[in-house]
Amino acid sequence: MSLKRIDHIGIAVPSLAEAIPFYRDVLGMEYHGEEVVADQKVKTAFFEIGEVHIELLEPTSPESPIAKFIEKNGGRGGIHHIAYATDDVAAKLEEYTAKGVALIDKAPRPGANNKLIAFLHPKSTGSVLTELCQPK
Amino acid sequence: MSLKRIDHIGIAVPSLAEAIPFYRDVLGMEYHGEEVVADQKVKTAFFEIGEVHIELLEPTSPESPIAKFIEKNGGRGGIHHIAYATDDVAAKLEEYTAKGVALIDKAPRPGANNKLIAFLHPKSTGSVLTELCQPK
Repeated sequence: MSLKRIDHIGIAVPSLAEAIPFYRDVLGMEYHGEEVVADQKVKTAFFEIGEVHIELLEPTSPESPIAKFIEKNGGRGGIHHIAYATDDVAAKLEEYTAKGVALIDKAPRPGANNKLIAFLHPKSTGSVLTELCQPK
Repeated sequence: MSLKRIDHIGIAVPSLAEAIPFYRDVLGMEYHGEEVVADQKVKTAFFEIGEVHIELLEPTSPESPIAKFIEKNGGRGGIHHIAYATDDVAAKLEEYTAKGVALIDKAPRPGANNKLIAFLHPKSTGSVLTELCQPK
């Protein structure tokens, strides 16, 4: 079974407070509030547009993968990952492994927004950080 | 009026031939074929997933903005831009200008896939290259 839709696009930002007004007040997206994901050392803000969400990611520590992304990007934010919705992340990981795809996460793990998530390895995705997710 | 949906996500790739199998055969997206956009010095490949398209962009010249993006990214591809669908790009440009947003394109211009497009300036979008588009 193919993937259903894009669940969200993850965007790294140095500051949620500075980035939120563009998505909420300029582009006019529905704002769903903030959440801290301690595990990933980030604070997120979610917006809705059509069937997709925009997930802004602000690092809460210099050790955060998002802090490293911003540092590599000359201190600027940028588009960090694409997450695809599926009903069964574990089954997809098995299917993709059989197709020769390398994984970052061998099994689904808890993510933001009450989801189970897993990342594929960029070496198998043309360097695009690619996430699978499903509702918990 | 707010934006309707994400129209497509633009992804820079060094080679369409190497990137297409991941989106078509691994992720299983519907493949809509290739198109040359001479103006932007790129060859594109479109895929459909839910209400969104994935647009792969391969440079056809070292002068292409996509070639420069890949060069800056250490020779690797990556997520290049997000395009939002609207019924009226010109009206949106006027609205956003009144809100203080800087523009790359002051007026809509022809893009790939039979669209009218315009880019906002990254300095107003938290460094995320942001496109508006409408059917011609």
